[in-house]
Amino acid sequence: MPYSYEFQRPALTVDIVVFALDEDDLKVMLIERDLKPYAGRWALPGGFVRVEETLDDAARRELEEETGLTNIFLEQLYTFGALNRDPRERVVTVAYFALVNLEGHRVQASTDARNAAWFAVSDLPDLAFDHHQILDTALDRLRGKLRYQPVGFELLPKKFPLRSLQHLYEVVLDRELDKRNFRKKILSMDILVELKEIEKDVAHRAAKLYRFDKAKYDRKTRGGFNFEI
Amino acid sequence: MPYSYEFQRPALTVDIVVFALDEDDLKVMLIERDLKPYAGRWALPGGFVRVEETLDDAARRELEEETGLTNIFLEQLYTFGALNRDPRERVVTVAYFALVNLEGHRVQASTDARNAAWFAVSDLPDLAFDHHQILDTALDRLRGKLRYQPVGFELLPKKFPLRSLQHLYEVVLDRELDKRNFRKKILSMDILVELKEIEKDVAHRAAKLYRFDKAKYDRKTRGGFNFEI
Repeated sequence: MPYSYEFQRPALTVDIVVFALDEDDLKVMLIERDLKPYAGRWALPGGFVRVEETLDDAARRELEEETGLTNIFLEQLYTFGALNRDPRERVVTVAYFALVNLEGHRVQASTDARNAAWFAVSDLPDLAFDHHQILDTALDRLRGKLRYQPVGFELLPKKFPLRSLQHLYEVVLDRELDKRNFRKKILSMDILVELKEIEKDVAHRAAKLYRFDKAKYDRKTRGGFNFEI
Repeated sequence: MPYSYEFQRPALTVDIVVFALDEDDLKVMLIERDLKPYAGRWALPGGFVRVEETLDDAARRELEEETGLTNIFLEQLYTFGALNRDPRERVVTVAYFALVNLEGHRVQASTDARNAAWFAVSDLPDLAFDHHQILDTALDRLRGKLRYQPVGFELLPKKFPLRSLQHLYEVVLDRELDKRNFRKKILSMDILVELKEIEKDVAHRAAKLYRFDKAKYDRKTRGGFNFEI
């Protein structure tokens, strides 16, 4: 035990809520714990912050070590410091919120051979620690952000049909949207570019593809945008 | 040095950005440091988190000890963990964001005799540590929240003339608003109650007083509200 301090210090960790979207559901990435406490229980990826790394770096490192995910949208969510959230000792965790587009990122088994898997947010196993609470906070953030920032595009491939964008909103907001109204509203925002391409290899009639125009979005909005659907 | 750990741990602190509004400006509460580093420099109120208290409790305790302020709107802002933000050692700080109504709260000299004072956000002294960055983050949050939550009412007395509400928006958003448009827009939101009272002891013509109707606001909004001015 080589490190001594005059006053007791909480341990400091990071935990990451990684969301992705597939054909059916909003998914979250979980890791099966192999150590106590909660051995065998599913949990958010995460771990201890090292003194020589920033909080963001700690979150990126843990995510890569445990899931192989790199280069994804990541932002700080909230810091959780309830007294007994970890049965071993006082642990304060800085939670992060990440979005990935499943087309671009493969998830691999973690280096220390623990299971990493996607779970539907609507059908979760029991989670370790206060990770249900952290996940709920991340969901609230995602729903909130979707309303005033174009953050949802992080969950889609670069080129997408409007159907996929509507699906994203329906899954995240957990309600059905009227197709015609949705299209009218989204197109009137004037932040999408209609491409000269259509979908490939689809069973249904191939739809037009669009991309998000970040430069236009940035010009149109100066810190404020109402994406109310 | 009685507390030993297997791995090095960052120190954990809280810092609090307290905003208030007066006739002229948006103000922030600062404390004059008497200890190194940055002795004599102004800084946000704050201090070390004890292992037996939550982060919120630490923020409330430090705020009361250093400024005498209690019972105010307080929420977590962001956690700052840059490597060299404190020259002594690695310190991670959980920043909080607080709003007070000056009519209801007296600020007193802190118990350890350091100076506590309000400064105009538009005319600040040099601050210790990364406190300018924390303050800028808090200002962004306040401006953002004002657009989609009725958080601004925390800065006003319970009963206020519309002029004060407009002043709040003008000062926080740092731009002038058209009086007629502002009134029309605010009243059309239907979240204010017109009282049967008028201002007292004012030099100009006494204006009608209003109060914010929280129950109505909660009924009308379910997690979303566009307060765009």
